[in-house]
Amino acid sequence: MRSSVIHFSCIDQEGIVSRITSIIYNFGANIIDLEQFVDKGKKIFFMRIHLNVSYKSANHSNLFDRLEKESLSLNGCISIFDLQRLENVALLCTKEIEPVYDILIKHSSNEIKCNIPVIISNHSYLENIASQFNIKYIKINPKDEKNLLNILIDYEVDLIVLARYMQIIGPNIVSRFQNRIINIHHGFLPAFKGSNPYRQAWNKGVKMVGATSHYVTNKLDEGPIIAQDVVSTGNKESVNEMQVLGREVERKVLSSAVKAHLQRRVVVSDNKTIIFNE
Amino acid sequence: MRSSVIHFSCIDQEGIVSRITSIIYNFGANIIDLEQFVDKGKKIFFMRIHLNVSYKSANHSNLFDRLEKESLSLNGCISIFDLQRLENVALLCTKEIEPVYDILIKHSSNEIKCNIPVIISNHSYLENIASQFNIKYIKINPKDEKNLLNILIDYEVDLIVLARYMQIIGPNIVSRFQNRIINIHHGFLPAFKGSNPYRQAWNKGVKMVGATSHYVTNKLDEGPIIAQDVVSTGNKESVNEMQVLGREVERKVLSSAVKAHLQRRVVVSDNKTIIFNE
Amino acid sequence: MRSSVIHFSCIDQEGIVSRITSIIYNFGANIIDLEQFVDKGKKIFFMRIHLNVSYKSANHSNLFDRLEKESLSLNGCISIFDLQRLENVALLCTKEIEPVYDILIKHSSNEIKCNIPVIISNHSYLENIASQFNIKYIKINPKDEKNLLNILIDYEVDLIVLARYMQIIGPNIVSRFQNRIINIHHGFLPAFKGSNPYRQAWNKGVKMVGATSHYVTNKLDEGPIIAQDVVSTGNKESVNEMQVLGREVERKVLSSAVKAHLQRRVVVSDNKTIIFNE
Amino acid sequence: MRSSVIHFSCIDQEGIVSRITSIIYNFGANIIDLEQFVDKGKKIFFMRIHLNVSYKSANHSNLFDRLEKESLSLNGCISIFDLQRLENVALLCTKEIEPVYDILIKHSSNEIKCNIPVIISNHSYLENIASQFNIKYIKINPKDEKNLLNILIDYEVDLIVLARYMQIIGPNIVSRFQNRIINIHHGFLPAFKGSNPYRQAWNKGVKMVGATSHYVTNKLDEGPIIAQDVVSTGNKESVNEMQVLGREVERKVLSSAVKAHLQRRVVVSDNKTIIFNE
Repeated sequence: MRSSVIHFSCIDQEGIVSRITSIIYNFGANIIDLEQFVDKGKKIFFMRIHLNVSYKSANHSNLFDRLEKESLSLNGCISIFDLQRLENVALLCTKEIEPVYDILIKHSSNEIKCNIPVIISNHSYLENIASQFNIKYIKINPKDEKNLLNILIDYEVDLIVLARYMQIIGPNIVSRFQNRIINIHHGFLPAFKGSNPYRQAWNKGVKMVGATSHYVTNKLDEGPIIAQDVVSTGNKESVNEMQVLGREVERKVLSSAVKAHLQRRVVVSDNKTIIFNE
Repeated sequence: MRSSVIHFSCIDQEGIVSRITSIIYNFGANIIDLEQFVDKGKKIFFMRIHLNVSYKSANHSNLFDRLEKESLSLNGCISIFDLQRLENVALLCTKEIEPVYDILIKHSSNEIKCNIPVIISNHSYLENIASQFNIKYIKINPKDEKNLLNILIDYEVDLIVLARYMQIIGPNIVSRFQNRIINIHHGFLPAFKGSNPYRQAWNKGVKMVGATSHYVTNKLDEGPIIAQDVVSTGNKESVNEMQVLGREVERKVLSSAVKAHLQRRVVVSDNKTIIFNE
Repeated sequence: MRSSVIHFSCIDQEGIVSRITSIIYNFGANIIDLEQFVDKGKKIFFMRIHLNVSYKSANHSNLFDRLEKESLSLNGCISIFDLQRLENVALLCTKEIEPVYDILIKHSSNEIKCNIPVIISNHSYLENIASQFNIKYIKINPKDEKNLLNILIDYEVDLIVLARYMQIIGPNIVSRFQNRIINIHHGFLPAFKGSNPYRQAWNKGVKMVGATSHYVTNKLDEGPIIAQDVVSTGNKESVNEMQVLGREVERKVLSSAVKAHLQRRVVVSDNKTIIFNE
Repeated sequence: MRSSVIHFSCIDQEGIVSRITSIIYNFGANIIDLEQFVDKGKKIFFMRIHLNVSYKSANHSNLFDRLEKESLSLNGCISIFDLQRLENVALLCTKEIEPVYDILIKHSSNEIKCNIPVIISNHSYLENIASQFNIKYIKINPKDEKNLLNILIDYEVDLIVLARYMQIIGPNIVSRFQNRIINIHHGFLPAFKGSNPYRQAWNKGVKMVGATSHYVTNKLDEGPIIAQDVVSTGNKESVNEMQVLGREVERKVLSSAVKAHLQRRVVVSDNKTIIFNE
């Protein structure tokens, strides 16, 4: 049995679900989950199908060829993901231990399904965490983009997770890893962009602090938002206490975004995301 | 254009989505939303389809006949709801004004779409609210089940909403209105069944109080749960203060359950509910 | 028995609690609640005391004179509020019925303790709600600030509540009602200031929408924040659906701010608020 | 400078705050935080004071003697805690890694302030986590209560944290460690006591799953509740998926209870807790 996820989108029109699901049915594959969404403003139809194909019953490449043809005839856009193939994830970090640990723990309990071949940092702070989990730790000069790119290529990295990396990723890497770099921003975007968002929030006297995970684009903290959450702050929180409060939200929001990406539940359209259900 | 919702369930098997959606497509109807759910333990497939049929393009009864035949051949169970027909809702209450107001306000802003021909109570307390909204108010003796049933029949009531009615509904009405009586219990079921749940919660020293809306069965506070929510209680809350806190949750949970029911997003299976997305 | 609330602040120093509470004790008054807060950055001490004075045991004005003297000797700032005197609240609104109803319902169930002598609007939309609750309804021209001010003076208004009023309050009224005008902004400030915040939020693709209640200053949507909350949005929400979702948060945040103000639990310092516990 | 926390309770009466704070003031100590709570039903007054005493200005033992005398004269109950002395915490666990890691991570980032000299388990599963953090790991036979007690004595354990230990602690240890054993129960108590609470919750069809941390008494899952939280479950969650969802809540609730305990913010009265603010 082989599990796949299909993302399909096209101009909204009648019969899409029927046409796509009939093909799947005729190839003897089984739909585990199907969810659709129509952007009523732009009249675009989006669909995610999770399907199982038993090894004997279907010729996968034939099924996928057939689906691609159908997509073409609908002027649509189709992507097919093989869930058997684990993605290679690189964690980039500086000093904050919580989001890194959170992903490693969820990885080790198989809640986050991927390979994590390498942790990359501009400091040595978290080297011991990498060694606790037997993961290669590489210290880099964050300004040497070429070196970073080489490492990513060497480790065949599919997804870059910025677990509070606090450094700008250069445009060359951003363009090669479009919608494949997830950042956690420790503020409730679009408020409090840039540096020291907790200080900004404290200065404004907000009653909740938040965190936002998003895909990285070349505009700082402006990429498509994947997940957000907040926590109430009482009066007594200083900036430091806000940071402690916020950490819990940051790691939750980051690992939720990473899980959604790896489960192929995220579709990006027009600098926004559609998140399909788990 | 006519909008309908279809609920379909059967033993899980291959090809269900394809078979049903092909029929819809061939009749020229348009799927607005489709969501499926498989109970993996019991291997039952559930699906909700929201579809539009333009007046000219299809013969509704033919489409629905065809779907019923298909359901039969799948050994399934199908229900078809016409969203144009507004349901008649009776509100039953005693003294609590908040859940009654909440439903009336959401009704008047068209967030809750139904008719509300009658408010029924064993007291006169809320008569003025009924008159504020020009709704017939009928005071009853809660022990005279026959009279209550006659009123429900007279007003052609489809759904009974117990907005803190605090009286037992007799088994005759319960059986005639199966999965059509929604109660709000002011406790986080299954804890704190029966009377005075806030007192029970306070005695236990819980740190959150909750509310639960559920369909009424003949077992007190044991019917299928539709919606639940909680709110944190600080230390200082007395039982009375807990009640004030809880009111906000009660009304939210009740109106959310009523909306879900009216939008045909609730399916009951084996004393539990499946709630489809809005 | 008479209930009072005291707000006191001064440069942080040793012995403040002891000095103030000894005076209260010596006058035979009883402390119901005492809460303090120190802004460690600015080294300012804030305290709220809720106290009961029995009619026979103390000469109120003497106690309050004595406390004012002590405040002077601490270079502090003291305010004393008589909880027996209900404040006069004016509701200003346009078309949104939910926040207006919410305050009127909580007022009628005595959860919000005040007088509401008048509802003021630039439209006639909500006149029937005012009449439902036997409250005077006055339609105004929002540009005629003088007329509005006269109405506020006529009704001896202490607190102005902008329940989605959607009009700018002129600087003359703002300066006369400093920290006595509460607005509900239907966005999570400081993001999405100004008009149509749901549209702004939708365009940004945020995953939660929020609401913010704040005191009104002459800078639009920049006054001290009193309460905030958010609600998750799924994918499927259009701008209109976001508005429906947000309404529940708006009314909750507004009535929570109004309650805090009336219970004298809000202190403003440096364009931020300190909210004492209920 | 030395930081202490004082818990004081007595029958509610006038002048308590004044009498206690005057003593503190006269000894030249500084109140950092003071919070009081009155159980209006039982008419008991509770107070927590966090105070700093500079080394030169006060004779600690004299101050504390004086406070104890005052407590006696008020027929009260006083406890004085020295925040300089870190408590020794033993973690007891079986297989679940998340709550153990969470405490160790928050300990290493100094959010949880204590010593953790030993991790104890009836299995070897988590031995590598202990070694990652250089903590002694001891595998025990959970039925040999005497041995467990000896280990706790050897390591001078102040607080026992059951991080999903899943074994009953014998009455001898429970009575020696009254209000010093914190358990995390993976259900929203008082519902779903005993084993397999997620299965129980799933069977009931609840729409939220929760977790409860509480002090251990000899009645299973009946001790004073310290913290609770819940998370919404959609339809699609199987029992296993509920467990994954619940893990996040479990660890949050457990570490929040441990922090509250170590910061001396928990007072137990009549099988319930009062939690003072951070």
